[in-house]
Amino acid sequence: MIKVSIIGSGNVSQHLIAALQKSQKMGSEIELTQVYSRKKETLSHLVEFKKIVTDYAELVEADVYIISVSDDAIATVSNQLPFKNRLVVHTSGSVSLDTLNTNNRKGVFYPLQTFTKKKEVDFKSIPICLESENATDYQLLDKVAKSISEKVFTINSEQRKALHVAAVFVNNFTNHLYQLGNEICEEHQVPFEILNALIQETAQKINTLSPQDAQTGPAIRNDKLTIEAHQLFLSNSNQSNIYKTLTQSIQDHGKKL
Amino acid sequence: MIKVSIIGSGNVSQHLIAALQKSQKMGSEIELTQVYSRKKETLSHLVEFKKIVTDYAELVEADVYIISVSDDAIATVSNQLPFKNRLVVHTSGSVSLDTLNTNNRKGVFYPLQTFTKKKEVDFKSIPICLESENATDYQLLDKVAKSISEKVFTINSEQRKALHVAAVFVNNFTNHLYQLGNEICEEHQVPFEILNALIQETAQKINTLSPQDAQTGPAIRNDKLTIEAHQLFLSNSNQSNIYKTLTQSIQDHGKKL
Repeated sequence: MIKVSIIGSGNVSQHLIAALQKSQKMGSEIELTQVYSRKKETLSHLVEFKKIVTDYAELVEADVYIISVSDDAIATVSNQLPFKNRLVVHTSGSVSLDTLNTNNRKGVFYPLQTFTKKKEVDFKSIPICLESENATDYQLLDKVAKSISEKVFTINSEQRKALHVAAVFVNNFTNHLYQLGNEICEEHQVPFEILNALIQETAQKINTLSPQDAQTGPAIRNDKLTIEAHQLFLSNSNQSNIYKTLTQSIQDHGKKL
Repeated sequence: MIKVSIIGSGNVSQHLIAALQKSQKMGSEIELTQVYSRKKETLSHLVEFKKIVTDYAELVEADVYIISVSDDAIATVSNQLPFKNRLVVHTSGSVSLDTLNTNNRKGVFYPLQTFTKKKEVDFKSIPICLESENATDYQLLDKVAKSISEKVFTINSEQRKALHVAAVFVNNFTNHLYQLGNEICEEHQVPFEILNALIQETAQKINTLSPQDAQTGPAIRNDKLTIEAHQLFLSNSNQSNIYKTLTQSIQDHGKKL
């Protein structure tokens, strides 16, 4: 069995705990040994009470400790662990491997997804990006990752930075465009739900087409009349500025580079 | 039976023809009377040869003529129709009702979706936005729309303009953000497919959460360290400019307005 302990009780941590427990029940070689939480109550709906510890000193030996806390707290937590030469990994997309204390062997176990509390996710389709200092540790992380996900990738710290920035574009910024679309609809008494099918289809197209081949609309067609009409229509200067900036970027990229 | 004729052989037109024929087969009161195409071959894989006409003079009486051609061609086509006082509608999101020739009764039958050739769409979930000059025509359009879609909305020309601009934000601009994400991945030798699950989840969240409630990431958290790190990381000035513009807009909107 591979003994896995989780440190942290937040959103990502809870989804990870649930996925590991599910994998254990299904007969994988994973064993969720312990979880650390400042308050037992935070995880008591999810984990047997006796497995929850509130003091780092209570952590027993495990094959890997997964620190799943906020980015700012990773260094502090890893500095406080009262053991040495064990495998300790974090789950962050934007924190370097070197942030972890050198007392232990370091690694990264980064599930790239947007986790929402209460909303169940299918971990199988969530990509997990792995990094470690040596091959033996990598093999162990690979086994843990493959026990919960079908998509496991080797990603070094520099690549992980790129992924994290790219994720901001396709997730945070995309969601903000939904918000601006919603805003325009509300300003003109149009139900935003009319756009839902379009939003879903836009995302699904990416399963079969490259974003470049999927690009449609007035900007890529260089349909000047429609672009002018849209800019006249937008009275809000922020919307208008974003319209202009993104239209220009689409045109600079061209249909086929 | 409601007799429907389609004028045009493009992308939207072909999807519409397929949906109407399917509805007819399923026993709806719709009858696809004729389709107009400059070349019969364009539609011969889809429609019986005898129903395809290549001359407006061959168009027989129908309850509604749906002009589904490029925005620029709508006026010209409607001017060339050799009959009067019939119901003629177009399928465009950005063209006013008044663009149609006054010889006939006007309307709009706008399916709001991004149609890709060869990619089948489930018309049932595609919103159709209707507009007409009088209530009787509206009822007829409503029956046709409901025979192929479960989501039918009354949308006037001003609302339709808003929808069309909003659609540019949630579809064209969103797809461009996917392209920029792809670009960042390629620059750092990271497979873009790692981001696919995130893209799908971002879109699906909108089924249950408002975009405002779904917003996550460094901008909304005002995580200055991460934002600075991302801006340093982006060497491409266009990516960096868009990062800055959208981050500012997210922060101006705030988490809860």
